[in-house]
Amino acid sequence: MTYCVAMRLRAGLVFAADTRTNAGVDHIATFCKMHVFERRGERSLVLLTSGNLATAQCVISHLCERAQHEDELNLYSVGSMFGAAQLVGDTINEVIERSSHGQHIGGVDFGLNVLLGGQIAGERPRLFQIYPQGNFIEATEDTPYFQIGEVKYGKPILDRIINFDTSLDHAKKCTLISFDSTIRSNLSVGMPIDYAGYEEDSFELKIERLLENDEYFLRLRQAWGNGLRQQFEQLP
Amino acid sequence: MTYCVAMRLRAGLVFAADTRTNAGVDHIATFCKMHVFERRGERSLVLLTSGNLATAQCVISHLCERAQHEDELNLYSVGSMFGAAQLVGDTINEVIERSSHGQHIGGVDFGLNVLLGGQIAGERPRLFQIYPQGNFIEATEDTPYFQIGEVKYGKPILDRIINFDTSLDHAKKCTLISFDSTIRSNLSVGMPIDYAGYEEDSFELKIERLLENDEYFLRLRQAWGNGLRQQFEQLP
Repeated sequence: MTYCVAMRLRAGLVFAADTRTNAGVDHIATFCKMHVFERRGERSLVLLTSGNLATAQCVISHLCERAQHEDELNLYSVGSMFGAAQLVGDTINEVIERSSHGQHIGGVDFGLNVLLGGQIAGERPRLFQIYPQGNFIEATEDTPYFQIGEVKYGKPILDRIINFDTSLDHAKKCTLISFDSTIRSNLSVGMPIDYAGYEEDSFELKIERLLENDEYFLRLRQAWGNGLRQQFEQLP
Repeated sequence: MTYCVAMRLRAGLVFAADTRTNAGVDHIATFCKMHVFERRGERSLVLLTSGNLATAQCVISHLCERAQHEDELNLYSVGSMFGAAQLVGDTINEVIERSSHGQHIGGVDFGLNVLLGGQIAGERPRLFQIYPQGNFIEATEDTPYFQIGEVKYGKPILDRIINFDTSLDHAKKCTLISFDSTIRSNLSVGMPIDYAGYEEDSFELKIERLLENDEYFLRLRQAWGNGLRQQFEQLP
């Protein structure tokens, strides 16, 4: 499985994805699920993927190949985030149609869910959740975050903390706690975590990978665990 | 959907169930999912159900009808909790077999998951999770709690707090917080909550129903929400 979160806040955007893939419990691997398309100063786009890994890699490859051809519509030439979401949605649709052709009986799920967020010069930052059918929805001030994959364990803490005015630093902390809760309760989600923060109008993503022994993550995890237990003791 | 939790702790047993059922979002109703078979001083048994409501009611009706006939094996005459789990498992199996006969194409899920816990004089308290197939597993010191229904939202807090030595009071608080997290994040789980605590060798269940405006639950909910946010602010 997978766990990915993305947020569209007043201050900017936040993206995080785990890196574990599994086809059954005896076939576990590490794959990056965060893909960046950036031209500093002009556009910063991030894709997070959850679902069939073959579909995910095929979609990303198509998007990258297209990006080589300047005369084709691609993620570097498209004029708006809405256009980018359409391009990604269409690509998902084509790939799934090709994979599933004549395979309707196999019961294989070729589906792919994508979170696409970013900013293109001239627009505000935007965030979309794109479905396996290629259609999509956009995050708003009322609903500033989307999750895909193994979403339930880490949802309560987001529901309690995150709103449109949450700062990027707070959002990062909250995201990491949401990942900690998910990783503790579900084996199919695992470290390292890929994280990207984006400040509005900066056109420069701050990307990092948090490894198993990341000092800040361990401190955060311990402080939160202890804090929760303390808090629990103090309840009426 | 449904959310039910049961725990087998050193001090005794804990049971909780929400009361919302839904067949689509436009068909929501309130049904009790906690069923008690008790003979004070001799045996205290609790069943929590999650799954097909028709199957659940049919299984409970069969168990109640059988309990009227003293010559038949029933939940008041069975000599051990293991025997009780077998009886419930067999009943589930029979009911599902009858319902699904000739219905394999309909795609209806007749399945029922049950948590059965309690104590029969001469034994220690025991807790079982019974599957739709009628087979079951028992809680141990290593894994002292079971959940059925919409289990994921409320699992992280149980994983962080509950172990075999948790007191009944702490277990109650933790259970209610686990319900609060689930109810906040998922519309298909709703108040009131049926709660039962059982102290080892007491042979007397303490049963209560927490309504939407239950004062203690509201205080707990608010204290926990505020505490979490405070805790969050203090993180590194």
